[in-house]
This record gives sequence, structure tokens and C-alpha cells, in this order.
Amino acid sequence: MTTATALSKYRNFSEWFDSLLLEAKIVDDRFPVKGFSVYLENGAFILRRVRQLLEKELNDTGHKEMIFPLVTTDELFGKEAAHIKGFSTEVFVIESAGGKPVESKLIVRPTSETIMYPMFKLWIRSHADLPLLVHQSNMVYRHETKATRPLLRVREIPWNEAHTVHATAAEAEQQVRKAVEIYRKVLDRLGLAYLVLKRPDFDKFAGAKYSVAFDAWNPDGRVNQVATVHNLGKNFSKVFEIEFETRDGRRENPFQLCYGFGYSRVLAALISQHGDDRGLVLPSIVSPVQVVVVPIVFKGQEESIINYCRQLVERLKSFSVKLDDREDVTPGEKFYYWEKMGAPVRVEVGPREMVENKATVFRRDTLEKTLVSVDELETTVANMLEAIDRNLGEKSWRVLRQMIFDASTVDDVKKAISERRIARISWCGSEECAIKLKEEAGGELRGTKFDEVEVPYGPCIVCGRPASEVAYFARAY
Amino acid sequence: MTTATALSKYRNFSEWFDSLLLEAKIVDDRFPVKGFSVYLENGAFILRRVRQLLEKELNDTGHKEMIFPLVTTDELFGKEAAHIKGFSTEVFVIESAGGKPVESKLIVRPTSETIMYPMFKLWIRSHADLPLLVHQSNMVYRHETKATRPLLRVREIPWNEAHTVHATAAEAEQQVRKAVEIYRKVLDRLGLAYLVLKRPDFDKFAGAKYSVAFDAWNPDGRVNQVATVHNLGKNFSKVFEIEFETRDGRRENPFQLCYGFGYSRVLAALISQHGDDRGLVLPSIVSPVQVVVVPIVFKGQEESIINYCRQLVERLKSFSVKLDDREDVTPGEKFYYWEKMGAPVRVEVGPREMVENKATVFRRDTLEKTLVSVDELETTVANMLEAIDRNLGEKSWRVLRQMIFDASTVDDVKKAISERRIARISWCGSEECAIKLKEEAGGELRGTKFDEVEVPYGPCIVCGRPASEVAYFARAY
Repeated sequence: MTTATALSKYRNFSEWFDSLLLEAKIVDDRFPVKGFSVYLENGAFILRRVRQLLEKELNDTGHKEMIFPLVTTDELFGKEAAHIKGFSTEVFVIESAGGKPVESKLIVRPTSETIMYPMFKLWIRSHADLPLLVHQSNMVYRHETKATRPLLRVREIPWNEAHTVHATAAEAEQQVRKAVEIYRKVLDRLGLAYLVLKRPDFDKFAGAKYSVAFDAWNPDGRVNQVATVHNLGKNFSKVFEIEFETRDGRRENPFQLCYGFGYSRVLAALISQHGDDRGLVLPSIVSPVQVVVVPIVFKGQEESIINYCRQLVERLKSFSVKLDDREDVTPGEKFYYWEKMGAPVRVEVGPREMVENKATVFRRDTLEKTLVSVDELETTVANMLEAIDRNLGEKSWRVLRQMIFDASTVDDVKKAISERRIARISWCGSEECAIKLKEEAGGELRGTKFDEVEVPYGPCIVCGRPASEVAYFARAY
Repeated sequence: MTTATALSKYRNFSEWFDSLLLEAKIVDDRFPVKGFSVYLENGAFILRRVRQLLEKELNDTGHKEMIFPLVTTDELFGKEAAHIKGFSTEVFVIESAGGKPVESKLIVRPTSETIMYPMFKLWIRSHADLPLLVHQSNMVYRHETKATRPLLRVREIPWNEAHTVHATAAEAEQQVRKAVEIYRKVLDRLGLAYLVLKRPDFDKFAGAKYSVAFDAWNPDGRVNQVATVHNLGKNFSKVFEIEFETRDGRRENPFQLCYGFGYSRVLAALISQHGDDRGLVLPSIVSPVQVVVVPIVFKGQEESIINYCRQLVERLKSFSVKLDDREDVTPGEKFYYWEKMGAPVRVEVGPREMVENKATVFRRDTLEKTLVSVDELETTVANMLEAIDRNLGEKSWRVLRQMIFDASTVDDVKKAISERRIARISWCGSEECAIKLKEEAGGELRGTKFDEVEVPYGPCIVCGRPASEVAYFARAY
């Protein structure tokens, strides 16, 4: 098997990504059920960290964490399907238990509207019960028919779903902005770069008034939708008969939102946006090991160098620090290993460092080495971790900007797609032109900037009629 | 509906428990699928805290957290069923997806042996790969035919399962002790009282050499199994063909353990062991609010009292503190509410306290009030939280000791069971006598102390032959 570090993520993304997943202990995709993978220790660690980051933001902004069941009834699910047409073509269904048919079929959640909203109906009586903000990190299950890909297109999807209920349309609109801000904050903390796009009307979430999505860039030019925010209006509250009494005594259906944040897709973005030919490059906040100390042992000095390293570890204990004192592994192999694992900072100690009361500090993102005195070690590492996090974000946004290509013709779009880039176009807004472009160039019309007004610089590049919007067009996962 | 606080948990446990679950925002059991409930904000909070406590212990003792899929294949599940006969009579089965039959039936995990062990087979090659210690907090699904009860007997079960693999039988034995210590530490931190029992051979986990279980007491005398540790020997490694190369080059099946910690059952124990007629009484570490500050507002002094309370909140910010400044609720109603929610400490502030620069501190477990000066407030609260935690544990162990009845005859056991107690008996060790006792007295033989030698004080109370063991007999959930 070719190792990850021998490949370039830009030239051969799939092979680079797949081999890194296993080698860096992120995911083992050899589980015998298609689309279901095992998250190994580092994958599980990063997912947990991302989950903690997001949940803190949600809890701090008034969302209550609750745990809802995995399944709903055929009847409740049908209620949605009849009105909204959502996931009926991809749900897993439990039909038996203990060898006997179940009384009533159980639908495994593809998302939790049909599970949560019957409870909301019980809980909401009056305007005093609103707004209601609920969230849950869970797994959802979708039998997607497209080819599966670990992290990016799976049938068991780890995510967080938030659902909110509001008395007025204006409040619901404001909540859309708040949700976008929460997701933006978490993604920014991870140094990820993305477009916040309002999806075109023909590609919104079934049952939504409109949908906003976060598309992260990927080295192969296919964007990776990591999060979505949907304004549902009253569509679901009518179907699930959620009602509240207004201040002036009328009974009304409230306004609703749902929004989701895909943990495995964010993990994929962390790997593919920050990683390089040596392996993972992790922001400090999600790295299982922030600082690894590697002794460079010479015959006869083993004990004194290890002891010196232990002192350094003691000085670094405010970080997640690890002493790699394996005896049967060479320092070179250790360097190679920890670079693949993405540890942001490595401290190397040989006889020279020991004698001079110093340490060599290696920075994973830039591959630079600095010799520092022991007294400065802790401060140097703290500053370096900050600098790495900042640099990863800046680099990632730079790549995204370079990846966007201003296309003036359909041929330009074709060229952009073939060069694994994202095309920016002037667009008349019609589904017809979007379909035509898809047929010719092979990508998808992803939408227009949600919170930034962009003015078309010419007519629609497909039909030549006046353009009303600037849209982004790319292949997608 | 009768409220929780009007009932006694000892006289009428079921009613007390069920009404408290909803009123204290623990669980809403009105979800339309039997055995599946919604964990409300406080229930979800406590579960999360307990999970964090346990996961920290597991991570600190070398267990790697991983995430395994929800489902296994019919074939892998059958492999176990053919040899070990485990959960086949209670598994949920997915037979279709997107309206079409799935290629191969999917078995929803009732526990993860058949999901994890095929991966262990891939990962384990040599003695250097051992020991392997893995854990995961997840939900497992069992279609139990007995009556369901929220938290205590559910079909969707939140728990942590750990699985370990060892090169030698001695190491596996040691791991049993380590697992018991981990669970003991977490339960002790929560002030829960329990028996650690080696289950009788006829009641061990299918496929185990032997099983150890933690039985927590419950006010109705029915013990609540909150955790189990199973020494599996080579039973599973043979079936799943897990092999490793020993130091001297032989190929062998390793030794395995699995152990589980039931989060919803621990939550049930927290409620029922510590709760009283006013509602929940929570140990500080799991309480969503540790200190609530309640202003007792008099006309004309509203603003000054609220401001004074804000200063107190500022002084208490090292705790999870909440100012209850609702305007449409009387102080009495607030007291009642926070007592039901189990907040360990309440700080009351009226005009007198404000003038004297003092605060009244109320302690939830003993219902005592103390007047303290503001300077002493933080220390008083810190000490009080510690005292509450200690007292809850001591009280709980006292109840357990009083609940145990030394029975010398079958009639004694009957009496003990009818009085909602646990019988301790001299026992010959035969299944026959255990069955006979069950038929006569209506409980179950739960086992013998695992880590404490108890010497029988007479012959077997059922058959009169020499007794080899001291066993515990009780009704169970």
C-alpha cells in the first residue's frame, strides 16, 4: 500500500485521503456493512472535541440539550411524507424484533423532525413557552444510493441537529442569523474556509422556505457541505399541529427552524484543508497530542536525556503533552510518525540541547525548527500553537480565494470544473440555466452568498438575459 | 395529577418516581413508541455529567474511545448466536431501506461484541498489539418482553461498553479488578450505594466465564443492576477467530473482557436513592444548578435587592450559580421549584440580609438554614457542597445496610421480600435451591460478594445441606 505521505493531496486526493484515514487512526473503512465505518481513536477524539466546541456555543445561546429516540412510527413519518416529501426514499426500516414482526414498523431517523415535533406539540401551549430551542448530537441514517465515501458520504452520519420554535416570523429570521453565527464561530476556530450560500430554491431542504449552507473547499475542487440552516416557516408546525396562544388570545401555528452541523464532514474538512504530504496538520484545539517530546538518545546518555525530557514535559504540562520514550523506535521514525498524526509542535532533545539547557522546537505547519532555552520553552510553545492555528486559517482562506474562478462563459465554467475549481458566475436565477450548466460542465449550482451582496458583472452567462445574482458553481460531495 | 412531593418514595415508589421524572424535567415518557423515551434537559444534563465522569476514568486508565456502527450483519450476528446464544430473541432487525428490501438484513446492536470483534481480528497480530482496551458510550437496543419502565427497563439503552483483549488469563483477571475499581470510583463519587456481586453461574452473561454485577438499592426493594463486568475467557476470541503471535512464536486466541455501565440506570439510582418527598436531591457534580439565588423582594426595594443578589452571584461564580429573578413567581414558589429540581444549595436574600450584609443559606439534603456574612459566603457554599455530597453517600449506604435482612429460613426470605428488603442467606450453591426460593419468595438469587469473603453462619436455608456461600436474594428490575 502506498503511504499517505508519498502522495499529493492536490494531484491525487482520493488515494491521499483514504490511506491517511487509516494510517492516522481516523477511520477504518473495512467494516462489512457498506457506508458504516469505525472511528478509530484519533477520529473519535477529534469528533468529540468538535462536538464539545459546538455544544458549548449552543448551550451558551440558550439551546437545551435533549436526547430523542432513534426511531419514529410509520404514521408520524407518513404525516411528513404526505405533505413535505422528505427522506422516504432513503430511510432504513425496522420490521421485526426477536424474530417476530413488530406491531408497527419503526422508521430509523434520517433527521428528527418527525420525532421531535410531536413532542413540541405536547410542550407548547402559549407564547410563554416560546422561543423553544433544542439540540442533540446524534447519528442519523440515510440509505444514500450514490457511492459511499468515508466521512464524506456515509449511511451513518454523526451530526448535531438543532430545532427552534418562534412566535413571530421576524424572530425566526433573526434565529437564522444567530445559527449562521454559531456555525461560523466554530468553523473559524478550526481554521476552516467555506462559502455561506443561500441554496437556490430548487435545491432547498424539503419543507423549508429557504436553506442556507456552509460549503467547505476540498483539494479536488468538490465542495463539502458541512452545515445547513433551514427556515421552515409554518410548514411543519401546520403538519404536526403545533399551536400556541398569542398574547391577545388567538391560537396560531408558530414559526420553526432546523439546522444541522455535520461532524464527520467537518472532520473531513480538517484533514483535507490542513493536511499536507506528510500527513495530518491539526489545529491545537482538536489535536490529541499538542506537543510531543522526542529524545534523541546516544549510547551511554540514555538515562540523562530521558530525565531531561521528563523535566521538559513537566514544564509543558499546561498543554496536552506526550513523551515518546519508545525504545525500539528511532528518532527519525518518531518524527515521521508524529508528523503524520498532525501533532502541532514537536520538541527534540539531544546531547547538545541537554548540555546547553535548551530544546529544539519544530513547528508542524511550516516545518521550521527553532532552538530555545528551557526558560522560554513554555511561552514559545504557547505562542507557536496560537501562530499555527492562525496560519492554518489564513492559508485555508487563501486557497479558497484562489480556487474561485470568475467565469464569463459556459466554457470558462467547464474549464474551472476540469481544473478542480469553483466557478463564480452572473446568473439570471432560473433553474433552466442551472440545469443547462450542469449538463454542460458537470457541477452544481450551489447558490448565492447569504450575507454579502454581490453585484453581477454582466448578463447571465448561460442565456444572456439580465443577471440578477452572482452564483457559485462547483462539483460537490 | 398528584405531584411528586405529596408522595413518599418508600410508600409508593412507582407513582413518586414517574411523576418526578416529568416534573423535574428528566424524562418525558409520552413518546409514541413503547420503551423509547425523550430525555429532557435535566435528564440529558445528568447523563452527560455521568458520562464525562466515567469516560475520564476510562481514558485515564488506557482505554481508547472509538465509535463503532449501530448495526451488524446477519452473518456476524449468527456466528455468535450459533456458539453462544445471546440476544437473538430480542434484537431489532432492519429489513428494508428506501422502500426496498436491503441486500442483507441488518441487526441493530443489543451490545457490540459482534460489531467490534471482527475488527479486533483485523487489528490484532502479535503480543505487541495487546492489551487492547476500547470503550464507547452509545445506545443499544433490546426488545425486552417484560413491562417497560422509564430509565429502568427501556428498549433504547444509553450506556458505556468497554471491551478488552489480553495475552494471558492472569492479565484478564487483573483487568476484572481494574474495571470493578473504575465503576466503584464513579458510583462512589455519585454517593450511590450498591452490592458488588458475582452472579451465580446459571445467571452469568451468555458466553462469559463469570459475571460481576453492581446492584444498587431502590426504595421499593427491587435492586437495580447499574453495571456489569464479564470475564469472557477465550469464548469469543475462538468464535471470532482473533489470534495473536506470542513472544515465542505460537499462535493463540487471546483472553477477553467486556464491561458495561448503564447510564439511565445510574440516573434512576441518583433519583431514587437520594430523592425525597420534595423532589430530587442531587450531588453537586451532576446538578445543572449547584447554587440558586432567590431574592425575597419587598415593594419599593426591588432594585436594591436584585442588585445585591447580583453581587452575590458574582462572588459565587466558581460554582454553577443561577439567579432566579422571575418577576411573576413568588419566593415560596421558587423555593418549591428548586427543591424539586434538587439544587443542592439555595441562597435567600431579603431586606434583613441586605441591611446586615448577609445571606441565608439553605441546604437541600438536611433542609437546614444558616445565616452567614457575605465574606464567608463562598467558603460556606464550598464546604456545604462537599458536606452534602458526603452526607448523601453516607445516608445511602446506611439505607442499604438497613435494607439487608439476615434470613435463616425460607419464610424469613418471604418476609424480607414482602417488606421490600434484600435477604442475605446461607446457600449450598445449587441452582435447584435458588429456583425453589424464587418460586416460594418471588425474588432472584443475585449472587455472592465479589471482593469480600463472607462465611455462612449455618446450613443452606433451603435444603439444609452444608452451605458454601453467603448469597443475596432480592427482587430486581
